[in-house]
Amino acid sequence: MWPGRTRNIQRPPIAKINALAHELEGKGRRLINLGQAVLGLPPPKRALQRVHQYLENTETHGYCPDPGLPTLREATASFLSSKKNIKDATASRVMLTCGANQAFVNALLAVTMPGDEVIIFAPYYFDHVFAVKLAGCKPVEVELAFSEGRYHIDFTRLKKALSPRTRVVVLVSPGNPTGRVADAEEIKTLCELCRRNDLRADSRIRSQVGMDRRTNPEVNFESALWLISDETYDLLTFPPAAHVSPAAICPTERTIVLGSFSKTFGLAAWRIGYLYGPNPEFIEETIKVQDALVVCAPVPSQMAALGALEEVDTYVPEAVSELIRRKDSLMSALKSCRTLEAIEPHGSTSVLARITTPVFEDAFAYSRSLLQNQGVITVPGSAFGPHGEGHVRLSFGNQPPSVIAQAGERIRSFENSCT
Amino acid sequence: MWPGRTRNIQRPPIAKINALAHELEGKGRRLINLGQAVLGLPPPKRALQRVHQYLENTETHGYCPDPGLPTLREATASFLSSKKNIKDATASRVMLTCGANQAFVNALLAVTMPGDEVIIFAPYYFDHVFAVKLAGCKPVEVELAFSEGRYHIDFTRLKKALSPRTRVVVLVSPGNPTGRVADAEEIKTLCELCRRNDLRADSRIRSQVGMDRRTNPEVNFESALWLISDETYDLLTFPPAAHVSPAAICPTERTIVLGSFSKTFGLAAWRIGYLYGPNPEFIEETIKVQDALVVCAPVPSQMAALGALEEVDTYVPEAVSELIRRKDSLMSALKSCRTLEAIEPHGSTSVLARITTPVFEDAFAYSRSLLQNQGVITVPGSAFGPHGEGHVRLSFGNQPPSVIAQAGERIRSFENSCT
Repeated sequence: MWPGRTRNIQRPPIAKINALAHELEGKGRRLINLGQAVLGLPPPKRALQRVHQYLENTETHGYCPDPGLPTLREATASFLSSKKNIKDATASRVMLTCGANQAFVNALLAVTMPGDEVIIFAPYYFDHVFAVKLAGCKPVEVELAFSEGRYHIDFTRLKKALSPRTRVVVLVSPGNPTGRVADAEEIKTLCELCRRNDLRADSRIRSQVGMDRRTNPEVNFESALWLISDETYDLLTFPPAAHVSPAAICPTERTIVLGSFSKTFGLAAWRIGYLYGPNPEFIEETIKVQDALVVCAPVPSQMAALGALEEVDTYVPEAVSELIRRKDSLMSALKSCRTLEAIEPHGSTSVLARITTPVFEDAFAYSRSLLQNQGVITVPGSAFGPHGEGHVRLSFGNQPPSVIAQAGERIRSFENSCT
Repeated sequence: MWPGRTRNIQRPPIAKINALAHELEGKGRRLINLGQAVLGLPPPKRALQRVHQYLENTETHGYCPDPGLPTLREATASFLSSKKNIKDATASRVMLTCGANQAFVNALLAVTMPGDEVIIFAPYYFDHVFAVKLAGCKPVEVELAFSEGRYHIDFTRLKKALSPRTRVVVLVSPGNPTGRVADAEEIKTLCELCRRNDLRADSRIRSQVGMDRRTNPEVNFESALWLISDETYDLLTFPPAAHVSPAAICPTERTIVLGSFSKTFGLAAWRIGYLYGPNPEFIEETIKVQDALVVCAPVPSQMAALGALEEVDTYVPEAVSELIRRKDSLMSALKSCRTLEAIEPHGSTSVLARITTPVFEDAFAYSRSLLQNQGVITVPGSAFGPHGEGHVRLSFGNQPPSVIAQAGERIRSFENSCT
C-alpha cells in the first residue's frame, strides 16, 4: 500500500479517461472531446498584448510581491465591485494565485487545522475533496436535492451535517458538474446558517450544545465557520439565471471568494485565478501559504489577466453568447437521445445527464464504452462522488456547435449499438 | 488568536523586510537590494523565443497534461542525465511544477501522513518548515555542524533525531542560506543512513526497536523514509566545488529530487520548476496533489523552460562566471567590514555572515538598522530558524559587482555610525 496520504485519494478521473483517449488517438481514431470543462475560445487580444509588452520591456524576470502585482490587485478589486457587486472590494483583500484550485488550497490551509470537517455539496468538484484530504481534514458530503428539474441545497441535510468540528462550508456556484446557479434566497439562507453556527461569532451556540474546554478537549475552541464561495464560472451564466456572490449580498468576516481568470477568459494554460478575503488580516495569513506553495502567481500570467480585465466588457458578452449556442446545441442533441436525460445547466460549461439505460454497470462503464465505440470523451459522474454515479458530464465549452451536433449523432449511434 | 494552522507559522521574513523597504522607497530613499536570493540576469533568448512561438501559434490556450508537456518532460530527463549525472532519468519520472516550492509541497503531501516527522537541517530554507507545518507534519531541526570555515551534516545529531515517525529527510545542496555544497562522501553517508532507517525497506530495524502494530498503534507501519533533495541551485556552484545529486551516486526507491528553472535561468517571474521521482508510481501518486493544487504548471512557463534548456550549454557557464564576479565582489567588500564575518559560499546566490558586534539585540535589529541607516536590504539569519540567529544573509545574485561594492561601502559607513 502507498505509504502516504494520497492513498486515500483516487487518481484524477479525467486523467483516467484521457489516458484511454490518448491510446485511441495513437491508433488514429478521431475523437470528440466533451471532457474538460473549459471555455475553448481564444483569450482576449489585450491579454496577449500585455504579455508581449512584458517580454519587450522587462530586462530581468524576477518575482513580484506574494499577493500579486499591485496593478492587478487593483484591477481585480474593481472587477469584483463592478461585475460582481462586491461593493467594498479593495486591493488589500485580493491575492492572485496559480489558478482557482490554488486559491482554494490557500484558503483551506489558512483557516483549518488537521482534523477539521469541511462540508461539500454533492455531486462535487473532485479537486475540492482531494484538497480537503491532503490538508488532513475530513470532507463531509451533503447531497444536493433535485426537484423540478434543478439542484438546490437541502438545508435539512446541511443542518444535520454541521458539527462542532465543521470549519468550512464550500459553495460552488455556478456548480460543477451540475451547472446549477444558486439564487439570492438560497444564498441568504446559507449565509445565515453559517453565521449562526460560527462558534466564535456566537458563544451562545457553544453553551447551548453544552460544550466547554474541559469536557470537550478535542474541540478547537478557536474555531470559526467559514464560507468558501468558489465562483470559477461566475460570468458564464445563461439569462435569466445570474450569478450571485455571498460577498455581495450577505458578507461576513468569514466569507471567502475565489475565482478564475483561466476559465472566464480562455486562459487555462496560464493558470491564473484569485482569492478574495473578508479583510487584510485574512490575506496576511494566506500569504504564509502562498509563500510556501508558489511564492507568487506567474508574473506573465498576471499580465495576461490584467489585459483580459481591460477587455471584460466586450469579451465576456460575446463569449457567453457563443457558450449559449454551444449549450443549446448540446441540449438539442441530447433531447433525441434515449439513454441520457440531460439536466438544463444555468451556468458553467457543461451538462450533467442521467444515464437511463440499465445496460452499463456504472457511469465509468458508460463513458468508457461511449469513448471506445464512438470516440466521444465524457466524464463519468462518479468522478464527482457517489452522488454523481449514474450520470455523465458532457462539456460544451470547448467545441463549436457543429462538432457538438456531430457528437450528438455519435451518441445516438452508440445507443443503437448497445441496446 | 487566528483560528487556522497558519497561526504556528511566522510571516515570511523577506516580506517583513520588504515592507519596510517599500516604505523607505516611498519616501524617495535609494536602496540596494541584497535580499532576494535569485539570479538577476536576463533569461536565455531562446526561452523568450519559445514563448513568442506559443503566443503566435496557439489558438486556444488550454491545459496540458498534469505532469507537464511531453517535450519538456523529455528535455528535463535529458538535462538530469547529461548535466546532473542521473543516468537512468526518464520522462515518466518527471513532473513540471509551479516553481521548486510547489515541487516540494507535491512530494511532501504525497509521501507523508499528518503527524509524521520531517528532518530539516538548520539553518534552513524557511518555506520548507512552513510547508511541513501546513501539511500537519512536525519539522525536526538538526543543526548543521560548522568547522574549518564550512557547514556540514552532523551525523551524530542526525542519528539522535531519527525516530519511528521520521518520514522524510530534506537535503538542500547548494544550501540556502548557508551556500554550502554537500560532497559525495557526505551524501553517501546520508543515503546509507536513510536506507538503514527505512522501516519498510528493512523490517529488521522494526524488530530491533521492538515495535509491532499492537504495542505501537500510533506508528504508521506502512512508513518509509524518503530523502527529498532540493537542488534548486544545482548548477550555480563555484569550482572546485561541484554539485552532487543523491540520485546520481546512491539512488534508492525513496530518493526524490527537485529543482528550479526559475533560479538557474533567471526565470523567477515564470514560476517553473520540476520534481523527479524514483519511479513512475511516485509520479502517479503526486499527480493527485498536482491536480488539486494547480492542475498543471503554466504552459507558457513550460515553453520558456524548454527554450532555456536548449541554451543550457552556453547560458549557464556565462551566468556562473558573472555570479562568481558578484560573489567575489561581495566577499571582498565584506573582508574589510568589522561587524560581519562572511562564510565563503561554494554555491547558491548568497553569503551568510556572522554578526560580530554586540550592539544589536538580534539579527532582525541588525538588518532593520542597516536598512534604515544605509538603505541596504538583507535578510536576518533568524528568518532561517533559531540556528540562523546572529547571522545575516546577503545575496549577490541580483546585483552587478559595482553595486555590490557600493553596498560594501554603505555597510562600512553603517559600522562607523553604530559603534
